[in-house]
Amino acid sequence: MNRVKVPDIVVSRLPVYLRALQYMAANGSITTSSQELGDKVGISAPQIRKDLSQFGEFGKPGTGYHIPFLIEHLLQILKVEHVWDVVLVGMGELGHAILRYQGFGNRGFRIVACFDNDPAKIGELIADFKVDDAEKIVEKVRARGTKMAMLCVPASAAQQVTDKLVEAGVKGVLNYAPVSLTVPPDVRVQYIDPVIGLQRMAYYLQDK
Amino acid sequence: MNRVKVPDIVVSRLPVYLRALQYMAANGSITTSSQELGDKVGISAPQIRKDLSQFGEFGKPGTGYHIPFLIEHLLQILKVEHVWDVVLVGMGELGHAILRYQGFGNRGFRIVACFDNDPAKIGELIADFKVDDAEKIVEKVRARGTKMAMLCVPASAAQQVTDKLVEAGVKGVLNYAPVSLTVPPDVRVQYIDPVIGLQRMAYYLQDK
Repeated sequence: MNRVKVPDIVVSRLPVYLRALQYMAANGSITTSSQELGDKVGISAPQIRKDLSQFGEFGKPGTGYHIPFLIEHLLQILKVEHVWDVVLVGMGELGHAILRYQGFGNRGFRIVACFDNDPAKIGELIADFKVDDAEKIVEKVRARGTKMAMLCVPASAAQQVTDKLVEAGVKGVLNYAPVSLTVPPDVRVQYIDPVIGLQRMAYYLQDK
Repeated sequence: MNRVKVPDIVVSRLPVYLRALQYMAANGSITTSSQELGDKVGISAPQIRKDLSQFGEFGKPGTGYHIPFLIEHLLQILKVEHVWDVVLVGMGELGHAILRYQGFGNRGFRIVACFDNDPAKIGELIADFKVDDAEKIVEKVRARGTKMAMLCVPASAAQQVTDKLVEAGVKGVLNYAPVSLTVPPDVRVQYIDPVIGLQRMAYYLQDK
């Protein structure tokens, strides 16, 4: 695909549109408008039209968007029309919950291996996965060619594990550890820290 | 506090600065510079100086920022110098992991109650919490005056539960369900959906 440089803030909204469209499709809808989609995701209709116009002509004035057509194109744009392999590091309580989560496969991702450094956990079977030794991350991830990882280790271990994942060729890290990571320019990190979300909301709450 | 209107994008970065500063403080640092802080969080030094200048004068040219002083002010700005009560709805695998997570208390939040609608779970003791009946959300949350909630229910139930939380007076919802929520203008939602993060990264990965 010939790509123009699209601002990251636009890219960040595409998965939200896709999720809402898939939800509408699952509920039997065939067409939608930027207005209806905007109401569902809390983004203005003109913003949605502008965002999507960066990638082509998807809607028609009067009739709006054909949902399956727009979903198909968003899957292509986001490169999730096929399923990406992901490795998971850190098999604590959260790692367990993620491993058992059923919501990845139908949205473009599947966990293919999981790692921990706790001898008590290595070799354990969790949801049909055998926990691998974290010492083997570089070797095993590189051998599989996996490009994405989810990180559920303690903050104190997160950078060290990230360095190993990067060495193994991983280009995208979804980081659940509450700490900022340093990575080379060709590697991306997305952060999931519930406290960051709570603190952002606390700012707007009335003083106690 | 007399507040000027600060852009949401600036507010969104403050918790990230705070987290990095607290990490530095825990490792014994007393002062830092916008350059050092920027390297840690992946944000440029001028951007950090500009963001912080919206709230006052925190740094000195040449000596930089006094970390405990800046932490104290960020805690005040974000209103997390005291601990906020939070309720948790949905006691599946993820709800369990969140309830057991030790990382809230020292960052401004504590879970005070949890709810589920599954008769098999209601009354169960999890990490010293008794699971309450989701039917009683409005009554119990209102009685406590809790203003924040974490939502770990299936997507199909998320809007309905949110409506109850809003009715109970909740003003901030951290939503783990993979669906956009509709709330009144005085209520804020923060989304945690790992697939959104993975899809954002997939966009930037080389084609397979």
